[in-house]
Amino acid sequence: MALTILCNNEFSPAATALLEAGTAGHKLLWSANRSANVLSSGRSDPLAGQADILFGQPAPADCLRHERVRWVEVTTAGYTRYDTPEFKETLRARGAVFTNASGVFADPCAQHVLAMMLALGRNLLPSHCDQLGDHAWSYEKRRYSSVLLTGQTVLMLGFGAIGRRLAELLAPFGMKLMAVRRQTRSEAGVRIIAEDALSSALAEADHVVNILPDSPSTERYVNARRLACCKRGARFYNVGRGNTVDETALIEALETGWLDAAYLDVFATEPLPPEHPLWTTRNCFITPHTAGGRRDQDEALVRHFLANLQACTSGGDWTDRIV
Amino acid sequence: MALTILCNNEFSPAATALLEAGTAGHKLLWSANRSANVLSSGRSDPLAGQADILFGQPAPADCLRHERVRWVEVTTAGYTRYDTPEFKETLRARGAVFTNASGVFADPCAQHVLAMMLALGRNLLPSHCDQLGDHAWSYEKRRYSSVLLTGQTVLMLGFGAIGRRLAELLAPFGMKLMAVRRQTRSEAGVRIIAEDALSSALAEADHVVNILPDSPSTERYVNARRLACCKRGARFYNVGRGNTVDETALIEALETGWLDAAYLDVFATEPLPPEHPLWTTRNCFITPHTAGGRRDQDEALVRHFLANLQACTSGGDWTDRIV
Repeated sequence: MALTILCNNEFSPAATALLEAGTAGHKLLWSANRSANVLSSGRSDPLAGQADILFGQPAPADCLRHERVRWVEVTTAGYTRYDTPEFKETLRARGAVFTNASGVFADPCAQHVLAMMLALGRNLLPSHCDQLGDHAWSYEKRRYSSVLLTGQTVLMLGFGAIGRRLAELLAPFGMKLMAVRRQTRSEAGVRIIAEDALSSALAEADHVVNILPDSPSTERYVNARRLACCKRGARFYNVGRGNTVDETALIEALETGWLDAAYLDVFATEPLPPEHPLWTTRNCFITPHTAGGRRDQDEALVRHFLANLQACTSGGDWTDRIV
Repeated sequence: MALTILCNNEFSPAATALLEAGTAGHKLLWSANRSANVLSSGRSDPLAGQADILFGQPAPADCLRHERVRWVEVTTAGYTRYDTPEFKETLRARGAVFTNASGVFADPCAQHVLAMMLALGRNLLPSHCDQLGDHAWSYEKRRYSSVLLTGQTVLMLGFGAIGRRLAELLAPFGMKLMAVRRQTRSEAGVRIIAEDALSSALAEADHVVNILPDSPSTERYVNARRLACCKRGARFYNVGRGNTVDETALIEALETGWLDAAYLDVFATEPLPPEHPLWTTRNCFITPHTAGGRRDQDEALVRHFLANLQACTSGGDWTDRIV
């Protein structure tokens, strides 16, 4: 059966061609309000009423309003705007499906976290500063402060697609892996911790990796009290969402040396303003929300959508289904 | 049987205590000419004639001259000064053993290479430059030029303890792994390439990792001809030895953009002189011979020696035996 698909995401020419070829036999509508930035929020669209499927960053109100919409796929892993009881219940009552694009971003995010962990372990950034500066050959200083990941302990805050991929990448290092999440069912190679055991897990971890999504229950989850539970000299990473961290408390923990270092990709305010103190906080290293980045992102998003279109039309398994 | 051990390596207090405790029952002599730098070359030692075992960086002449020496362990992975037919044959004829410390340095070197690969893939160094400079939030630029290792091809030049560990660390990335070495016996997960197939392997590799030791046959192995065989846009890494690379040809390959980037830890001249052009070559990133570095190096070297002392006295298996 021919379905009508409305897309409000601007893709590269190659990914656009892939989407057009993969939806042949269906009707593909392009929104007049397209954005290439997957983190942007789409506005309400006059074409939404004609669509069976919304793909991109559709306005939540459009998904709710139009009874005809049977499937919504967003081009992000985060889906805060859609994560309301009203949204989920309305779609569920209609028999509609909601999917996100976790599978596209889990691998780059996990590689980004491992890159951060290894860059700190191998002193890559101070060596690069030497290179940019006076060409100092800081052999002794850098060599004897290099740290092996082998045998260390990692605690993940939140555990979904990114955490699972990170656990795969860390497996050869022989580390102890722990993760805190609400569902306490066990996972291969990772000890799942209930929230009431968090303090002792924090006290044990050499690396605390924040992968929490944005939600009312995670707001400022990493606060002064929890940072004080960390082992002295621990390293903190954030590829989740910025407002899950009390940034003032984090700055304090870094400036006092309680935490050895932090490597952050997300912030409460983005872009991080040039005058923000995190830019110059002691041992605080920053990437500009690039953890999920991949050169082939647009093709990967389209391939993800087309695999789910197959599930939609032929009844196969959905990927990254939320509702 | 009590043996006499002469050590000319200066260790940390903790490692010294560990060595003294572990050699109780034997006679441990400390050379007057000790060095804490494992890359230094020890001079001939007047105490060597009294020793059954030489540990550290003994002068090759001492190993050869003294018939009593039955085992030599060097505190490095490289052993160029000992890698002569005369040295090996003399020890072999005497029934003596020669071991190096590969096992201590393989894990840090492999983690260092992966750190370099991921740092380039995730644009960590340009993001750090933004942080050190004007606090630019280069979201689009960094995000859409980030590259996943997943599915890419790695060619290792040389394949021993470091390569084997690197192959373990890379296994979860689903990369195609190849290695060139003289012995063409197969290895799990790695396609071993004979040297006459090198050109086509170079043409296929996204990442060329040089792990070659220093020897007459590897001098300037990576030369203009071989660099020209590389795929345009390939990335080159060196954690082997500096004089296995024609640095002038490498600079040319980087400046013309034939290679996308190089990440180098070793150089023909070390320390790399401040005026050396590699410091400022386009997309050339430098660490000061720190790939083998680990904070616990001294304890790890002593533990490695004590395990081999067990093999020496009780006939167990030697670790990292060369002769």
